Amino acid sequence: MALKDLAAVARNENGIAAMLGILKQRFGDRFQTGNAIREQHGHTTTYIPNQAPDAVVFPENTEEVQEIVRACAEHRVPVIAYGTGTSLEGHVNAPGGGICVDTSRMNRILAVNSEDLDCTVEPGVTREDLNRHLRDSGLFFPIDPGANASLGGMAATRASGTNAVRYGTMRENVIALTAVMANGRAITTASRARKSSAGYDLTRLLVGSEGTLGIITSLTLKLAGIPQAISGGVCPFPSVEAACNAVIMTIQMGIPVARIELVNQLQMRAMIAYSKLNYPESPCLFLEFHGSEASVAEQAETFGEIASEFGGGPFLWTTVAEERNELWKARHNAYWSSQTLRPGAKALSTDVCVPISRLAECIAATEEDIARSSLVAPIVGHVGDGNFHVLVLMNPDDPKEIEAAESFVARLNARAVAMDGTCTGEHGIGQGKMGFLRHELGDAVDFMVAIKHALDPHDIMNPGKVFFRY
Amino acid sequence: MALKDLAAVARNENGIAAMLGILKQRFGDRFQTGNAIREQHGHTTTYIPNQAPDAVVFPENTEEVQEIVRACAEHRVPVIAYGTGTSLEGHVNAPGGGICVDTSRMNRILAVNSEDLDCTVEPGVTREDLNRHLRDSGLFFPIDPGANASLGGMAATRASGTNAVRYGTMRENVIALTAVMANGRAITTASRARKSSAGYDLTRLLVGSEGTLGIITSLTLKLAGIPQAISGGVCPFPSVEAACNAVIMTIQMGIPVARIELVNQLQMRAMIAYSKLNYPESPCLFLEFHGSEASVAEQAETFGEIASEFGGGPFLWTTVAEERNELWKARHNAYWSSQTLRPGAKALSTDVCVPISRLAECIAATEEDIARSSLVAPIVGHVGDGNFHVLVLMNPDDPKEIEAAESFVARLNARAVAMDGTCTGEHGIGQGKMGFLRHELGDAVDFMVAIKHALDPHDIMNPGKVFFRY
Repeated sequence: MALKDLAAVARNENGIAAMLGILKQRFGDRFQTGNAIREQHGHTTTYIPNQAPDAVVFPENTEEVQEIVRACAEHRVPVIAYGTGTSLEGHVNAPGGGICVDTSRMNRILAVNSEDLDCTVEPGVTREDLNRHLRDSGLFFPIDPGANASLGGMAATRASGTNAVRYGTMRENVIALTAVMANGRAITTASRARKSSAGYDLTRLLVGSEGTLGIITSLTLKLAGIPQAISGGVCPFPSVEAACNAVIMTIQMGIPVARIELVNQLQMRAMIAYSKLNYPESPCLFLEFHGSEASVAEQAETFGEIASEFGGGPFLWTTVAEERNELWKARHNAYWSSQTLRPGAKALSTDVCVPISRLAECIAATEEDIARSSLVAPIVGHVGDGNFHVLVLMNPDDPKEIEAAESFVARLNARAVAMDGTCTGEHGIGQGKMGFLRHELGDAVDFMVAIKHALDPHDIMNPGKVFFRY
Repeated sequence: MALKDLAAVARNENGIAAMLGILKQRFGDRFQTGNAIREQHGHTTTYIPNQAPDAVVFPENTEEVQEIVRACAEHRVPVIAYGTGTSLEGHVNAPGGGICVDTSRMNRILAVNSEDLDCTVEPGVTREDLNRHLRDSGLFFPIDPGANASLGGMAATRASGTNAVRYGTMRENVIALTAVMANGRAITTASRARKSSAGYDLTRLLVGSEGTLGIITSLTLKLAGIPQAISGGVCPFPSVEAACNAVIMTIQMGIPVARIELVNQLQMRAMIAYSKLNYPESPCLFLEFHGSEASVAEQAETFGEIASEFGGGPFLWTTVAEERNELWKARHNAYWSSQTLRPGAKALSTDVCVPISRLAECIAATEEDIARSSLVAPIVGHVGDGNFHVLVLMNPDDPKEIEAAESFVARLNARAVAMDGTCTGEHGIGQGKMGFLRHELGDAVDFMVAIKHALDPHDIMNPGKVFFRY
């Protein structure tokens, strides 16, 4: 994970120089080479050092992306798609330089088919843009990774977040994609039908490919009906294990919980101090239920009974929006509140995902590891999926702290994989987790590499990501 | 679709002879070359002419499948995975001969993790086997394509069926696969975590690849809790359009319907005659709702109100299992009853899937087409997904009838694709729909072929399927 471990990508100086000339002429003001803008486009929400691209170009449609990629293919120059730069594992760094394709001007909502509960958008549309646009339609796009990310970026990294336990991840919510492949050809991966058995699932292959196989230029997405009613609340538990057992029973009973978020004791302490709350300083579950008026009340009541079986409670819940927002405010401020645990520190945000039966064990072992390592690192989790995040607060200028954080992350990943889990539930591999992919999936990685070779033989699409070397 | 159009695959006589010697010696009684067994293994539920493999082998574990595939790779001999032979598009035919790998002896349930709502099974386990095994666990495997298919085959063809509107298809319900790839290496595509952003989605690439990329040797599957209560019933409508509009509103309102099946007028006529029912001879919806006692009653009542808004009803429904089975009996007997429309005929079962907003239009145009073509062809549909089936009853010994049926299927596929749909919602491409894949997906097919080339360079995995030529 340290810079020394990042995959080296050789710079093709001649090719890059040629591309800069071509793009400057073709795109005028929509082509930028200033230091600030280049660095901003290499930077993501990560502590991984910046590796800026040589230029940033702002195409406005699929044909322009094709032009750029065709030229990059001809000159063997890396091409890196950029949405909002909110990824967490160095996905948009440019280790071999090259051209950053910023999709922010491809921000049109092309169609909303409310009868079909789907829409087609350009990749630069953010999830908040889309939901604002949908507001009066009775529909919404449910995937919420926290950041106001672009939908193209969310698909490319297979994002998910708090709603995934009910609505799925980008994997389940992308119906079809248009993408420009490494040879500059544009393809549409599927029709708008809800299901299909027609050929290989190129949609799912591109979702999560992190820009290494193609650049997404439009997405057809599933939408959900805005629920008639929402109930939500907070429930403290005597231990993480008790909370996890309540989650397991909730899922087993088929309660269609929309969000079920675990906050550990350290994170609760930070949230209580930050948001001046009257909660107990113990692990809590934050929940939300979607459905009819009767159903959301029934779901909340049933959960309350489950919680008390495991020593949890009281479960404070409400169907009144303002009161619910008040109860959830602490969870929404989790990221900011955690900063108060160590003012001035930089956060390394990492995630793993395990089968839910192993979740309590995995979090407990991780809390012990954090204590042993003298790290300040609160935990929040999308526990309905077995996914949790650790935010390691560190001084990025202290190599010892970086090393301690990195070896903690390595142990965390090994622990998750040993429990039949994955080294990343939703953040992706990027540069930060390249070392763990083969540890998790072994020889399967060779077949991923074979696909990468077949579809991008000159390795121009976001090189130096996902795989160490080919 | 006629034999003349099937992809020709050259026979490698020397390689096949060598393989027969190797496998006979290695597998003894578990290696068969009798005519009857070979023909049975080429035959699927289809009118497509039989192309038998040269031998059938019955491996008992992944290592034995690896041995077989390694030898086939060395001798350049086709290898065709076989589950229960219930596919509908000639998937297990052997146009170039070769070795059929029958997975029926790989029928162990390896693990049931009830806390995680998942299980791991060998590919020869059928869905009824699995559900019998799960009966006392409170869990079930919800995908129901009708036939008691093997789970390996269901994954390979991306099967779905009546429950997909609520529980998804095999695409959404396979967590991870073990597969033997064309070079004989076995890989595991994913961990048991519910979600992951670790690398390319090889699971989804293999699901629906119809044995052309690898042979599945184990599957980790999602399970669902057996619902506390089930309500179900039947509702007649004045027209297919009215029924489809009721479906659209049901889905839009977020009613989590578990099954919603359309039966057209001709199919109803057959079912009424066959099952001696007192129903009106008009298009009907058959519905099922899963949830708590209160919720399934609420769902059924709400649907009844929606139906009457569109002129449908009365909606007869019940939560009592025997009464529900009585109401649904006609739907369960649909296939058999349709045979009475033309005794002695053979059925060509085809399927398409369109966005639900186009479903009424697509079915109406298809009914007109059927009338114009003087075909006997009832329609049933998994309409919550926009997926419907036409069963063309024909005399398979009359070339004119075959031609008429084939040109009808071609028009049906073109119609579905023109409505932004797919030429197959759940049956797959096999041999029968190879001609339509490029019509639907254009240049995207070239990238599928590139993947096929990369992972199976000698084209030994189920050759002559999915793609016409490379």
